[in-house]
Amino acid sequence: MQLTGRNYIGARTSQSGTRTFRGVDPVKNVELETLYHEATGEEIDAAVRLAETAFVEYRRKSSKQRAAFLIAIAAEIEALGEELLDRAALETGLPMARLVGERGRTTGQLRMFAAMLEEGSWVDARIDRANPDRKPLPKPDLRRMLQPLGPVAVFGASNFPLAFSAAGGDTASALAAGCSVIVKAHPSHPGTSELTIAAVLRAAQATGMPEGIVSMLHGVSPEVSVALVKHPLVKAVGFTGSLRAGRALFDVAAARSEPIPVYAEMGSINPIFILPRAMKERGTQIAEGLKNSVTAGVGQFCTNPGVVVGMDDATMSAFVEQVAGLMGAAPAGTMLNAGIGRSFAEGAKRFAETAGVRVAAKSTAATVLPTQAAPIVFTTDADHFIADHRLREELFGPATMIVTGRSREKLEEVARSLDGQLTVTIHAAPGELAEYRNLVEILERKAGRLVFNSYPTGVEVCASMNHGGPYPATTDSRSTSVGGAAIYRFARPVCYQDFPAEALPEELREGNPRHIWRLEENEWKR
Amino acid sequence: MQLTGRNYIGARTSQSGTRTFRGVDPVKNVELETLYHEATGEEIDAAVRLAETAFVEYRRKSSKQRAAFLIAIAAEIEALGEELLDRAALETGLPMARLVGERGRTTGQLRMFAAMLEEGSWVDARIDRANPDRKPLPKPDLRRMLQPLGPVAVFGASNFPLAFSAAGGDTASALAAGCSVIVKAHPSHPGTSELTIAAVLRAAQATGMPEGIVSMLHGVSPEVSVALVKHPLVKAVGFTGSLRAGRALFDVAAARSEPIPVYAEMGSINPIFILPRAMKERGTQIAEGLKNSVTAGVGQFCTNPGVVVGMDDATMSAFVEQVAGLMGAAPAGTMLNAGIGRSFAEGAKRFAETAGVRVAAKSTAATVLPTQAAPIVFTTDADHFIADHRLREELFGPATMIVTGRSREKLEEVARSLDGQLTVTIHAAPGELAEYRNLVEILERKAGRLVFNSYPTGVEVCASMNHGGPYPATTDSRSTSVGGAAIYRFARPVCYQDFPAEALPEELREGNPRHIWRLEENEWKR
Repeated sequence: MQLTGRNYIGARTSQSGTRTFRGVDPVKNVELETLYHEATGEEIDAAVRLAETAFVEYRRKSSKQRAAFLIAIAAEIEALGEELLDRAALETGLPMARLVGERGRTTGQLRMFAAMLEEGSWVDARIDRANPDRKPLPKPDLRRMLQPLGPVAVFGASNFPLAFSAAGGDTASALAAGCSVIVKAHPSHPGTSELTIAAVLRAAQATGMPEGIVSMLHGVSPEVSVALVKHPLVKAVGFTGSLRAGRALFDVAAARSEPIPVYAEMGSINPIFILPRAMKERGTQIAEGLKNSVTAGVGQFCTNPGVVVGMDDATMSAFVEQVAGLMGAAPAGTMLNAGIGRSFAEGAKRFAETAGVRVAAKSTAATVLPTQAAPIVFTTDADHFIADHRLREELFGPATMIVTGRSREKLEEVARSLDGQLTVTIHAAPGELAEYRNLVEILERKAGRLVFNSYPTGVEVCASMNHGGPYPATTDSRSTSVGGAAIYRFARPVCYQDFPAEALPEELREGNPRHIWRLEENEWKR
Repeated sequence: MQLTGRNYIGARTSQSGTRTFRGVDPVKNVELETLYHEATGEEIDAAVRLAETAFVEYRRKSSKQRAAFLIAIAAEIEALGEELLDRAALETGLPMARLVGERGRTTGQLRMFAAMLEEGSWVDARIDRANPDRKPLPKPDLRRMLQPLGPVAVFGASNFPLAFSAAGGDTASALAAGCSVIVKAHPSHPGTSELTIAAVLRAAQATGMPEGIVSMLHGVSPEVSVALVKHPLVKAVGFTGSLRAGRALFDVAAARSEPIPVYAEMGSINPIFILPRAMKERGTQIAEGLKNSVTAGVGQFCTNPGVVVGMDDATMSAFVEQVAGLMGAAPAGTMLNAGIGRSFAEGAKRFAETAGVRVAAKSTAATVLPTQAAPIVFTTDADHFIADHRLREELFGPATMIVTGRSREKLEEVARSLDGQLTVTIHAAPGELAEYRNLVEILERKAGRLVFNSYPTGVEVCASMNHGGPYPATTDSRSTSVGGAAIYRFARPVCYQDFPAEALPEELREGNPRHIWRLEENEWKR
């Protein structure tokens, strides 16, 4: 299709604003043709108002109808074929194999939520029946289930142009929960977003969804995002991106006269702890795995391992040398945009100039454009790492820092100094975890996911996944942005007391017509 | 026991501060003997640090051990016998029958959470097993469950000296989730709080719980509360009280460098909508029920119905007269403290002086002391109610306002003008709900609990209860502060990837040794 560069507000497109921007091909670092129009205050308001109207109608749809919508979105995305993949590759520089995989993840997520809707038990239905004879007071009939929050603002992520963008995980889980969605497209892949939103709208029309169920706004200026989060009809926010931007949106939402939940996934440094016996037994193998994990996707995964912690001994010295050799020989890569490229270069320079930090290796690959990044590995000791908070901040890109300590207690001290993380990884030999129980317990409190003898990159989409973690990994550690449980972010319980059968949602009626798991008088039944 | 007026910090008591206050007998409006000492910054810090140390040890306790602790607390509270009830009656002016009931609710809650721990399924365990042969990438083994957040600050509520105070719902659910607790005692019943905390500490000692698992601090000044919420080791807050205080704590928590969840239940006006046919058929009966609900506990329930909405017709006029007659004849009552009494008097005066508002009746009962309140009923029309936001603010006490509209659309407009509510009640004749579908749908989005043909006061403690609702009823509509689901406020998911069996929590091991419900490969199994 011909890209328009316009905002999608319900069934119409609009470009009333004067601020414009273009997508960029990061491989060549040149601007692309289509001119994108930032949404104005009026356009933002129109999209949200339409989302509110659509929400009222969408709530009335059955779970089956919502599921059909999600499935249709997946099919429409697939029907875009090469056009979507080519546009995403052009705008992000990500390799085709990765994008094919990411598209599969995107459509897989949509179908996973559709299956959850069809099965139906996610609403957490609970029933306690009346007992009019109870003394001193009769017991009422109480039935409760989850209901959708309302219109949700979804912010596309730069590093997942498909799986965490216009029709990505946040959009899919919000729609599944029964919410309408206003997407703020990421300016780093506006064309990919436009192709996707057009596919979503075709699916909405084909399955009879109300106008405005999904809208999409463009913007580079923070004002667009702030206005969207401030809008009184917006009831929740999904975001994946930097700590600075995520915290800013959280602050805006918390300062509203009606505060709303913000699910900002802001990344982390995803430490890998290598216990001494594991290092001795598998150091060489771990070095190879580490290099692959750090450089995967040019280090642009939220779960990129930015820190490796281990004991300061002879095997560690050999390990550092191996990692240095591998990273030094690794090729340079193209980052998502010049801003990210520059941040990486500046951050790497800052690390290199920090007292106590040594550059163990830097890839010799040439970097000509500001979008190009060369892998780099730093070393430091535990005391410097603990003393300087800046060393514990995320450096988004193909870099890692090896931190060494001279005792078990020192490693525990390093663990305690860490902020909240999406993941923490531990490499241990058989029985070694038990020896380091204190360390494991400290780490358990720091992360949303604990990885054993593997690497944090690669986030499985399934019911058991938790992609979240204590602040600053996210603004809400009680939730996940990946996997089936992501649906719970956009719903709240509603209890119906003594309601007549015909006025109850199907999920709560006698006879369990939806055949879902329900907690009836404290027993799970179906 | 002899009341000490001291702060309880782990095993010791402390009174290093110079600011003091006394409890008050609201029936006589005279100060009581014991002098209470506000916690100092050092005492707050000591209590929180001890809670952090205790948390590390408490996490290691099995669910059975935690359950034994909760059961022991219930038994110790009962063992206090008359002493606790007498002290609570003296400090709050609440009648003995009510306090006996509230004590039953308090011990019932503790035992309910103990039963949930023993059963074990609340941890929402999910398992997706490995598939090393999957292409293109092997699938890891993923197992996830809920884990406790850390030390929780619990603020006692003035209006539930037992059930939402030192060992009330927030404390019980936080301890059940595996968190340690720092109670900020409500200054309106400090002696009741001290007796209770001493009982909790006896239970902790008898069941081998770590020192500091529960501490209790006194304070009248906002500084004590603010310092507690700001403390970096505090990971969540439970609160029941006024909008002003709750919002202030929410703002403090949101502005922390690490924001934390605040579960503030701040009450609401709990509207009752009476549809025309129900009014015609049962107006007299509803008037009686309304009067009982408004005046129950001198109107000091969070679910007190502060607004009644109905069609402006002849049956409504008769209804207003009936309510006026009943409320005018209702006795005055003693409120919890002079501050609440004065707020009620001032608020009632403000309402009475507001344009478009008429005092339909005021109890003729004499009120001499500032703690005494006389029931009052106001009327106004929909347009005035909608135009003036102050009329939609909570007036805590035995008052209600009858709002009339001339059309179905006007009633919908009234519904739309409402803020978030703990409850909304609808009285309807058979089939009438369907006629008012739009209205019901609007109300469904406003409240945490919808009550049919009954009254909102009386909150059942069970799995299906939802005591929560959209802001400003609470700061977090996704949760309840009453009932089994309250435990979820203090936990977050943690995912274990490829963990060796011996390092996994029991709940996630093969063979399901805890015999709990788990979602295994997307199927609920036990």
